[in-house]
Parts: sequence; structure tokens; C-alpha cells
Amino acid sequence: MTVTDDIKVTRARESKLKSLSIEDMHFGHSFSDHMFVAAYEDGKWQHLEIKPYQPITVSPACSAFHYGQSIFEGIKAFRDLKTKDIHIFRLNDHFKRFNTSAKRMNMPEVPEEIFKEGIRELIRMDEAWVPDIHDYSLYIRPFMFASEAFIGVRPATKYEFMVILSPTGPYYSKPMRLFAERHYVRASEGGVGFAKNAGNYGAAMYPTSLAKKNGFDQVLWMDAKEHKYVQECGTMNIFFVFGNTVVTPSLGEGTILDGVTRMSIIRLLKDMGYTVEERHLSLDEIEERYKKGELTEAFGTGTAAVILMISGLADGNNEMKFDEKKWKVGPAVKIELDSIREGSAPDKYGWLEKI
Amino acid sequence: MTVTDDIKVTRARESKLKSLSIEDMHFGHSFSDHMFVAAYEDGKWQHLEIKPYQPITVSPACSAFHYGQSIFEGIKAFRDLKTKDIHIFRLNDHFKRFNTSAKRMNMPEVPEEIFKEGIRELIRMDEAWVPDIHDYSLYIRPFMFASEAFIGVRPATKYEFMVILSPTGPYYSKPMRLFAERHYVRASEGGVGFAKNAGNYGAAMYPTSLAKKNGFDQVLWMDAKEHKYVQECGTMNIFFVFGNTVVTPSLGEGTILDGVTRMSIIRLLKDMGYTVEERHLSLDEIEERYKKGELTEAFGTGTAAVILMISGLADGNNEMKFDEKKWKVGPAVKIELDSIREGSAPDKYGWLEKI
Repeated sequence: MTVTDDIKVTRARESKLKSLSIEDMHFGHSFSDHMFVAAYEDGKWQHLEIKPYQPITVSPACSAFHYGQSIFEGIKAFRDLKTKDIHIFRLNDHFKRFNTSAKRMNMPEVPEEIFKEGIRELIRMDEAWVPDIHDYSLYIRPFMFASEAFIGVRPATKYEFMVILSPTGPYYSKPMRLFAERHYVRASEGGVGFAKNAGNYGAAMYPTSLAKKNGFDQVLWMDAKEHKYVQECGTMNIFFVFGNTVVTPSLGEGTILDGVTRMSIIRLLKDMGYTVEERHLSLDEIEERYKKGELTEAFGTGTAAVILMISGLADGNNEMKFDEKKWKVGPAVKIELDSIREGSAPDKYGWLEKI
Repeated sequence: MTVTDDIKVTRARESKLKSLSIEDMHFGHSFSDHMFVAAYEDGKWQHLEIKPYQPITVSPACSAFHYGQSIFEGIKAFRDLKTKDIHIFRLNDHFKRFNTSAKRMNMPEVPEEIFKEGIRELIRMDEAWVPDIHDYSLYIRPFMFASEAFIGVRPATKYEFMVILSPTGPYYSKPMRLFAERHYVRASEGGVGFAKNAGNYGAAMYPTSLAKKNGFDQVLWMDAKEHKYVQECGTMNIFFVFGNTVVTPSLGEGTILDGVTRMSIIRLLKDMGYTVEERHLSLDEIEERYKKGELTEAFGTGTAAVILMISGLADGNNEMKFDEKKWKVGPAVKIELDSIREGSAPDKYGWLEKI
């Protein structure tokens, strides 16, 4: 008996696709016909179920609301526009990161078979929701929260693991203006910055709102000790291009997310002939090399946008401006990655998993 | 028209107290007959309601699960054993702190009248749940979470504010052994350590579990920059007694909770003739003065336990042991505070609010 046989399946009576078209849907608001659910109780994962996408019922004392044991992943599935096959991008890396987050938040790990087969089975059921359109994809959101009805500060004894799906179209975004945040801090060494836990995002919203009021799009977080070294942007990792060398902050301190897009871009850049350095990178060095004309472009990486070019980076009242005419590396590596994900270039790294 | 008139009330058909006695209930597991709910939508607070305590329905995309905008307070109500009046302890201070947390987490503030009258009306309805027993009280848990069904990283547009009540009995606890945590970090300057947001608690659980495996009860958190200065214990603030002087970490860096019990204890200690210093306190100083015999006792303060005495504090393999026979200040100030809360001493500070 496999995990798949253990999944109780209840089909939706009618697909929402009968009255809606994928092009009209909005990412993060529209979800597919079904969802996958599993419960952790009595020390084991059980009650695996695929059922119509629907509201869930929790206790007002649901531990996640009070004590924040809550993590998630963001994964994408793509349709090969020629073969019509569906591929999930780097599922295993997302699975591993999910359990890294779980461990740091003192939550039970989700077994590999439940995580992966839950996602695969759900996508098989809702395969009509994987867009057959260039630049579209299916966003997969696995998440887990403490569901025990108990308000006392200790790890919960009950958890829900769920997967929901939202189709997503092209990510249009003008280049981003970043504000280097030297007062507010996202993550410190010994903290939870490397985990994809809900609290990291909520904590970042207020400083980000302040930056937005001043005309910026995102905050560039700095280290907690000296407010000197760049970390990440909260929703994306960051890369700086110095001629033939691309520098991105290192993972060693556990303060930034080990981005799956980040690791993919590093791999591609190396194979495109660039030198990639994962290391401490100070804002001082960035500013100095910008003044010398050595810093020609910067970009962010993330699952949603793949690559987001940076038009400006402000440190207090001084802003470095990046000239779009000089951007080369970011746009080129985006094409490389997009081509693999959509099936127009060979998957030579084994990043795609066919469903 | 007052807020009270705006509250829609639906009474439970039958009180759970008919089949249960308060002495048999377990704190955090048993809740009173009703709950208070208000919703933030379209930029305003509305739909104020008291209804039977019951599960709530949320979307799987409920923003709090994914991006962690979730805060709470812990307040206590006491019954005067002579007059049978019900008093809430320092409601206004808890109200102010709740909105301080809301602001840091980029959530809408809850208007004073809704916060306070919601709590008062709920307790009036469930006044039979306020124990009429020495050492018992009613724990009040106001909380707010982002309820919008949208998975995109931005502040939610919809929130739920709720209040639930749980009767609580005497807090028996043996003195605590603390482990000074020099690797994991709870909060850094510029972070969210001063806010009572859910994520702070979830992030603390794994390091606390490690300490518990080694026989400790709690972690004593250190500063993020130098791992040198003591902060708090995650569920309680910390005080060290050096003869006639009591030292507790200062609030300036925004890394520790501005505990309502902490501020009450400081006030009482001063009026008992002690010198109270709110300042940076290094583990080095603590260890040095312990060796000299100047450090005679240490205790934690919090809403649940009021005062928890510390029996040991380990820094790596070295552990300071505190001799119960020398404890004087903690036990004495606990009696002072308990007497005010239960009505056996006059409320000279105006901390009690009669319902």
C-alpha cells in the first residue's frame, strides 16, 4: 500500500473552470477545485485527504494564531507547451527546505511521501488548472500550522499540513527601487531568518510599509549586528553584478532564505561563465564599487518573479541608480531558467519532475 | 449609542458550568460559554458580537497562517473574595500594549472602546466563570489575526479581533533552572521582540526544547549582537537581586516585552524600599557578583505565575545555584501583588478596574 492509496478522495461536484477562465484569475485569490489535507495527531500523520477546496474550521484557541508555529513553501508547476506534460520545479529542494523550517519551528517533519505524493495527486486531480499558456504556471502552496486548541506556550501536539493551488500569469513588474534598512532588522544569527515561517513575513511588513511610503518597492535587509552587510529582500534573494563576477550574500549565518531560485541562478550563472561569489557583502563595498563604475546591475530572485531587476538602491539619502541599458546578466539568466521551466531548453540539471 | 449597544448578543442555550466545575478545568483547555468577536473590513471595525464559544471558519488562504500577522494579550480578572466584585488587572496597560504590537505588525489598531467594552461585556455575560476561590482567577485572552483569504506578501485588508476566557487555578511550579542561551537568539534591536506577536513564541520553542532536554525549564535569552547581555525568558521578564538593589533589563532596545507584571513589580519594589535599576545587565556581571556572594536571588515575572523563583542559571557548563533559604525579595513582592489583586490589600495604585 502506497501513500496514494491512503488518500481519501472526495471530488468537487463541478469544476470552477466551467464558469471561470484561467486568464481572468488573480494569483493568490483564486484557488483550484481541490485541496490536500493531512493531520498530525497522536504522534503520527494521518487522515490524508483530497477534497473540494473549502473553508477550514479551527478552534479560537488554535495554537498557530497564538504562538505562531506556521510554515509554508512556494513551488511552481509548468506545462510543457509542446508535449503538454506537467512538470514540478525542484520539488525535492522545496521538500527539504520545508522540513528545515519545520525543525526550526519545533514542528513535526512531514514525511517525504506525504509531501510529494500529496502534491502530485492534487495536481493530477486538478491538472486542468495547470495553464497551457506561455508565461503562466501553477503556484503550489504547501503549508503547515499548529492546530491544537490549547493556549499555553509549548509546541503543539496537533498540526495540519495542507496544499492549495493557485494559477498564476506573467509577473509584470517595473524594476524595483530598494531601501537599505539600517534601523529595522529582519533576522539575526541564531534566529529564524532561514526558515520559511509565517512570522518572518509579518514582522517585515511595517518596515516595508514605511519604505513604500517613501516611494520604494522593497526593503533590503542588513545584518543585525553591524547594519553593514546586505542580507535579502524578504521576498527575494539579492545578486550584485561586478563585471564578470556576481556576488550574493552567503547562507552561513542562517539569516537569509536558502532560495530555490537563488541556487538555480547560481548554477546557471556559473555555467554561463560567470564567477559567482557567495560571501559577506557590505553596503560600503557596494557603494564604493558603484562609484568606480564596477557595479553595473543588481537583481532579486524568487519563485514568483524569477528575476526582478533593481533600478535604485538607497542608503539614507544617497541612492545608487542602475542604468537599464547596462543590464545584461539578469535578463540573460532569466531566459535560461524560464526556458528550462517551460520545456523549450533541455532540463540538463534534472530540475523538472514530470507528473 | 455606545459600543455596548452595537454588540450583537447570542446567548448559549446552556452553560457548560452545569456539568463542569471550575476546579476541574485545565487552564488553556477549557473556555467559558461565550466569546467576543469583531471584524475589520473595508477599513473599519464592525460586526461586534458576543456568541457561544465555538469553532471559527477561515479560508485555507487565511493570511495569518501564511504571513504571520497575529498578536495577543494575556490579562487577568480576579474576584474579591469578600465583596464578590470582579476586577480586571491593569486593563488599560494591556490595551496600550496590544496596539503597540498591532502597529509593529502592521495591523489595524483596535479602538479602545471595542477592546475594553468587548472584554467587559463578555465577562459580564460569563461572570459565573470568574472563580470565587483563593488563588484562582479568570485568564482573558484577546487576540487578533489577519483573516483575509489571499496569499500574497502584503498587509492583509481583513482582520478578526477576538476575546476568549479561561478560568485558571493556582500556578504550582517548582523553582526554575534557566539556561543562558548564547547561540540561538529571540530578538534583536530593530526586530519585533517587544511585540506580543505569535511568531516570537513559535521561534523560541526549538531552543527551549533543546534546553529542556538538558534538564532546564526555560531559556534566558541574550542580546543578538554580543550574546552578552540578558534579555528575558520568552514567557517572563527577569529580575536579579543584589542586596538592596534589584536589577532588570531595560526596555530601550525594544528586544524584550514591556511586561505588565514587570512594571507592577518595579513599582512595588520601589515602594518597599528597594532600589530598582532598569539597565543593561551582562552575564559577566551576574557571574562575578554571584561569586562575591552579592547575588542572592533571581526571579521571573509574568501574568500567569506572577513570580517564579530561579533555582539555577547555567552558562555553558557552569551553573549558578540559588539557595532557597536566602530568597526574600521575590516571595515578599509576590504577596504584595497578590494581595492587591485579590482585594485583601488596598488598590493604592489604581490597578484594578471593577466591572
